[in-house]
Amino acid sequence: MKQKRFFLQEDQIPKQWYNIQADMPVKPAPMLDPQTLKPVTVESLSRIFCEECSRQELNFTDRWIDIPEKVREMYTYYRSTPLVRAYGLEEALGTPAHIYFKNESVSPVGSHKLNSALAQAWYCKQEGITNVTTETGAGQWGTALAYSAKLFGLEAAVYQVKVSYEQKPYRRSMMQVFGAQVTPSPSMSTRAGKDILTKNPFHQGSLGTAISEAVELARETPERCKYTLGSTMSHVSLHQTIIGLEAEKQFEMAGEYPDEVIACFGGGSNFSGVAFPFMRHVFSGEKKTRFFAAEPASCPKITRGILSYDYGDEAGYTPLIPMYTLGHQFQPANIHAGGLRYHGAGAVVTQLAKDGYMEGMDINQIEAFDAAVLFAKSEGIIPAPESSHAIAATIRRAMACKESGEEKVLLFNLTGHGLMDMSAYDQYLRGNLINYSISDEEIKKSEEILAEMPK
Amino acid sequence: MKQKRFFLQEDQIPKQWYNIQADMPVKPAPMLDPQTLKPVTVESLSRIFCEECSRQELNFTDRWIDIPEKVREMYTYYRSTPLVRAYGLEEALGTPAHIYFKNESVSPVGSHKLNSALAQAWYCKQEGITNVTTETGAGQWGTALAYSAKLFGLEAAVYQVKVSYEQKPYRRSMMQVFGAQVTPSPSMSTRAGKDILTKNPFHQGSLGTAISEAVELARETPERCKYTLGSTMSHVSLHQTIIGLEAEKQFEMAGEYPDEVIACFGGGSNFSGVAFPFMRHVFSGEKKTRFFAAEPASCPKITRGILSYDYGDEAGYTPLIPMYTLGHQFQPANIHAGGLRYHGAGAVVTQLAKDGYMEGMDINQIEAFDAAVLFAKSEGIIPAPESSHAIAATIRRAMACKESGEEKVLLFNLTGHGLMDMSAYDQYLRGNLINYSISDEEIKKSEEILAEMPK
Repeated sequence: MKQKRFFLQEDQIPKQWYNIQADMPVKPAPMLDPQTLKPVTVESLSRIFCEECSRQELNFTDRWIDIPEKVREMYTYYRSTPLVRAYGLEEALGTPAHIYFKNESVSPVGSHKLNSALAQAWYCKQEGITNVTTETGAGQWGTALAYSAKLFGLEAAVYQVKVSYEQKPYRRSMMQVFGAQVTPSPSMSTRAGKDILTKNPFHQGSLGTAISEAVELARETPERCKYTLGSTMSHVSLHQTIIGLEAEKQFEMAGEYPDEVIACFGGGSNFSGVAFPFMRHVFSGEKKTRFFAAEPASCPKITRGILSYDYGDEAGYTPLIPMYTLGHQFQPANIHAGGLRYHGAGAVVTQLAKDGYMEGMDINQIEAFDAAVLFAKSEGIIPAPESSHAIAATIRRAMACKESGEEKVLLFNLTGHGLMDMSAYDQYLRGNLINYSISDEEIKKSEEILAEMPK
Repeated sequence: MKQKRFFLQEDQIPKQWYNIQADMPVKPAPMLDPQTLKPVTVESLSRIFCEECSRQELNFTDRWIDIPEKVREMYTYYRSTPLVRAYGLEEALGTPAHIYFKNESVSPVGSHKLNSALAQAWYCKQEGITNVTTETGAGQWGTALAYSAKLFGLEAAVYQVKVSYEQKPYRRSMMQVFGAQVTPSPSMSTRAGKDILTKNPFHQGSLGTAISEAVELARETPERCKYTLGSTMSHVSLHQTIIGLEAEKQFEMAGEYPDEVIACFGGGSNFSGVAFPFMRHVFSGEKKTRFFAAEPASCPKITRGILSYDYGDEAGYTPLIPMYTLGHQFQPANIHAGGLRYHGAGAVVTQLAKDGYMEGMDINQIEAFDAAVLFAKSEGIIPAPESSHAIAATIRRAMACKESGEEKVLLFNLTGHGLMDMSAYDQYLRGNLINYSISDEEIKKSEEILAEMPK
């Protein structure tokens, strides 16, 4: 019988994360302090983030970073995640491609987000922090942080994008079961929230807005409260490389190697996590793997974003980041893939896209759900709307193989399950979903606003 | 670092199920045909069930039954499920007990029910059946059957207990994603449903009622449609023994052996699955393992049920089964653990309880949710309300160890996750849950009704 799933023994789980910043042929432009417009330092970053994450953020020299033993212990609660050969999907498509997925949905909180939440909560605890704040879109990151905080005895306050708060009440419940405070964003509890609601009382929220609120809350008591972020930043990508590092070992067990690696793309954390360990062999010239970022057509940074310094949040509290961005005040359409509704790509991913190491693919909402339902029926797993973008992109690549007859090895990252998103599936089944593509007018408006940002 | 999770390689997954009926010291009394009151035959059973399941139901001789290769292939989509050492829970309790759980929640549909659904759908397909019907309470079994039917190209019609249909809309969506027709029960689409609704238009539904509806639908076109059942029957228990057989091998890897095995109890399928493989070593005298069935206090068959012949369904379409039962017309309280709202225990489990091989433990709703939240915080997994009864029972046993200082090895079966049950958690967190214990009056009424059943 053909082997379906590949696991590592617990002692084979990688003991270090891979820091791509040490290996990049061209380093990204520096992030800038929003007040001084000078490059950020560990000191300035650690006004918001914990110190160890701030150090990791600016580490351009150490290729490998040790995973703390306590974090490794908590990784064993769900890692290694399986590398799965998608025989069912291959059969449904009639493709000669070998499709594999890394199943991060098996994590206790249902997504890959836990890989970084555990690390960030642990570092905060070590540094004497008692409270953590964060934003969450679909709720995947917020749930991961809520659980991690509880585990290490921290209090967690989560600002959840309002549209997701309303679309996904079960996610809110999950965070509350883990003991977190959850507030829909924009809220009246912060200046950033108030300002936004004053301008637009019906603001549906965005990740950029929720970040502003969470950062503001953390800055009120910086000595005991830190902000944590679930994507975009290099230290988050670093923690996520456990995904690709495991996959690399698991492909050895399978006797294969991926020709193409595909991930959905919001701020870039899961993309980075699955791609970077394989990308290092492209840097070294050993391999020719291609990398695809599957973006929502309503919020496409890689294919249609503008290369510019931009804030990570709506209110402009974060450092200026060199980004492919749609502008920090861009309000993405209310697609169900809330985790992909972010305006910009992180600095490292932006540089890699600029240098041609990765490609964007735009996926519309209905194509994503078509792919999701086909995947559910053929592999049994109901995927998150975010992950469904990666599945749709993989199906496109697999159908290209069918046309060309190529037996390529494709790997995609199944970031999470969609069990909290069944109301979105209901709408899909009833034919009530609509597509949203970004318009030329929206891009033009973004260009105008971004023209005023520092160069 | 201490090992947390134990997996089997795919070639180590058991190739046969364990048929306890071949080994029981005292065989159960025969099921009776409801018309003739004579023992059922393969022929009479297969008017409702597929032939192979009917044969398995009455097989008292073969200890081992081969798992069909296609079913084994589909098992590899999620099996082996991990045997997990609950270090987090042990620490939270401060118990010297070693607590293990078999995590069946990792199955694609979120519960152990798939173990039998795959087998039943496969046998139906082999026998030329095109349609399957079933009932479901919480929706775990219905989802498993919906997925399995889709996989093998069968049409599935599921009657879902009305109160669960309303409490758990996401489960209904899952079944629909997998292509099943879902009808809340009682419905007006069957005579059984109409009769019940005529008597009581506000009937909330029960598993017994939903079974009547599903059986009636199957009997209309027996040549192409079969009824499938998710619990109670011996062939279902047989398919579920994959759980305990895997666990036995995994305990070898862990270098331990369970002193006590604990499972929640609705009709008995998950209890049987995890317990029977270990019970065979008690029959043989090699081991002294104790077995606990964790029942809801509102529907306690093992501790308070009456030993009697009874129907498996409300309308009396099924064979008469020798059961510990509360009566086939008993309407259990609307607890959130919908899967445990069944009036009787299967024939085999009944005999084993009578002969002292297993013990019942009654758990009230709030104790179950207390246990669930503690488990979620310490192990990261939000359990199904059904499984939470097993966790609560395990906690009782672990606290007994704390008192006595005994370092016992406890195993419980985590049948499913609770991600479809977050509204129940919401109610718990708001303090809105209430306990329901069966009353002496209810028991007395059951006794009176059952006094009229054949002996």
